[in-house]
Amino acid sequence: MFFRRVAFLLFILILSARLAAAQTKTVAERLGYPADAKLLIIHADDLAIAHSEDAASFEALDKGAVTSASIIVPGPWLTEVADYAKTHPDADLGLHLALTSEWKTFRWGSVESKDKVPSLLDSAGALWPLTENVAKNVKSQEVEKEYRAQIERALAMGIRPTHLDTHMGSALSTPEILAVYVKIAHEYHLPILAPRIPGDPLKLSALLNEKDVLVDSVTIANPSVQAGKWKEFYLDAVKNMKTGLNEIIVHLGHDDAELQAVMVDHPDYGSAWRQRDFDVVSSLEVKKAIQDNHIVLIHWRDLQKLVQ
Amino acid sequence: MFFRRVAFLLFILILSARLAAAQTKTVAERLGYPADAKLLIIHADDLAIAHSEDAASFEALDKGAVTSASIIVPGPWLTEVADYAKTHPDADLGLHLALTSEWKTFRWGSVESKDKVPSLLDSAGALWPLTENVAKNVKSQEVEKEYRAQIERALAMGIRPTHLDTHMGSALSTPEILAVYVKIAHEYHLPILAPRIPGDPLKLSALLNEKDVLVDSVTIANPSVQAGKWKEFYLDAVKNMKTGLNEIIVHLGHDDAELQAVMVDHPDYGSAWRQRDFDVVSSLEVKKAIQDNHIVLIHWRDLQKLVQ
Repeated sequence: MFFRRVAFLLFILILSARLAAAQTKTVAERLGYPADAKLLIIHADDLAIAHSEDAASFEALDKGAVTSASIIVPGPWLTEVADYAKTHPDADLGLHLALTSEWKTFRWGSVESKDKVPSLLDSAGALWPLTENVAKNVKSQEVEKEYRAQIERALAMGIRPTHLDTHMGSALSTPEILAVYVKIAHEYHLPILAPRIPGDPLKLSALLNEKDVLVDSVTIANPSVQAGKWKEFYLDAVKNMKTGLNEIIVHLGHDDAELQAVMVDHPDYGSAWRQRDFDVVSSLEVKKAIQDNHIVLIHWRDLQKLVQ
Repeated sequence: MFFRRVAFLLFILILSARLAAAQTKTVAERLGYPADAKLLIIHADDLAIAHSEDAASFEALDKGAVTSASIIVPGPWLTEVADYAKTHPDADLGLHLALTSEWKTFRWGSVESKDKVPSLLDSAGALWPLTENVAKNVKSQEVEKEYRAQIERALAMGIRPTHLDTHMGSALSTPEILAVYVKIAHEYHLPILAPRIPGDPLKLSALLNEKDVLVDSVTIANPSVQAGKWKEFYLDAVKNMKTGLNEIIVHLGHDDAELQAVMVDHPDYGSAWRQRDFDVVSSLEVKKAIQDNHIVLIHWRDLQKLVQ
């Protein structure tokens, strides 16, 4: 009996020590890099919404201009992306879980059967246009159904996602949706994009376990960046990058007739914006700045291994 | 009592005479043209599947190169077409009722909730790729639900359809689906594209009433037409056009990156095909041949008035 008690106590001690070690180790250390490494994922959002978006993103993935990308499963071009995923098994592709369909002339609906997720749909039968509509209208149990449907559809199409993230940040729009997002990620053993927010207003930390990975810093262009200062914006982000896990999120596309029509009357994140993002991530200056600043490019697949 | 009987008999006689007159009058006469007029609808199919398709079709409608067009309601660009319909209330737009989603990398699903129409969907959750799949798999009561959902969605989007026709002819693929197609058309008081088929194997005539309109001749390009003989094919059709109600069906688009991607590996009805159709219907030679052959261009809206 005594030995059994000692063995049990020893087990608890070892477990606690391992948990403490896991919690105190930085992501860089957990990946085998020095504790003060600057890790960077360059990530393309919104695959499967348009051929122009897919073509630019595939090219950027192929030449290493981005390290990862994520897919809007209800997008009509899902099969094009699934074909790419099958012929490029090393491509680091996640799912850009979507609760919104934001463009004016071009919409998509739910993957789940419509009558099972009525709170997710607007009067045109499409997902809500804005994150505010999502926060106000959706039922979290219907979000869970739709998230599961998006993941299962991707798996059925032969896509092996390396991570989950969130289109227009709608997974972070209420504590209830955030709880679903984390729960599903744990079930599928996938890392999620979840940034540290001072004060933790969404109570994210209470949802996480010791394996989970938080991104320390996310850089994304915004409407205040002038078109002529586009490269400067990203070069500044790279030059000022800090120790920890960083992600630069870009939206890639060609400024062509298709993308101009998808993004009509929407200059923010529009087709010219996406062309600029493509041109900048493809530039030698950005590549050189990453090297000069001793930044380690990583993939979501690396982080996926940490949450198994 | 005697007078009531006489009055009733008189009523029956007048009704019979009117029915006989309606049945013996040609469509041309019913529209106020000479009985031997050559009537022609030039019709663009497949609106709402791609911006390239929409842009080419809108241009052809605006300049009168086609007189009518029809919309694939489950197509992701439905809102673009609905916007056009609202700003062009005279545009003659019908619904291209769809039970198929035939392209390789770009798919659409049902408008009706998926769990209500499972026999209409393939394993990817999209409508079947081929008409043969439709004929083999669908349940006609689910076709009825989907047809109603497509019509109601179009109405809700502000589209006022002038007619119904059938994407890839799937409404004509079984007698049961044809019966649904005619029933729905009668309910909504819309004319349908239904060609005369020798021997009437689908028992169409038994479904029709005295107001219904049949198209006497449908011309559509097929894979045996060489690209270099495209204009000749249509000019021959115009020059040899016979008395009665004729329709030339075209598929319009620009041979650009978007349409090339939608129609990848599919030269039949592909993007170059659609560019050729656009170029030919826009040509002065076709316009002149129509005039020289005393052909009367009409719209489905004209036929819509006959079925009220």
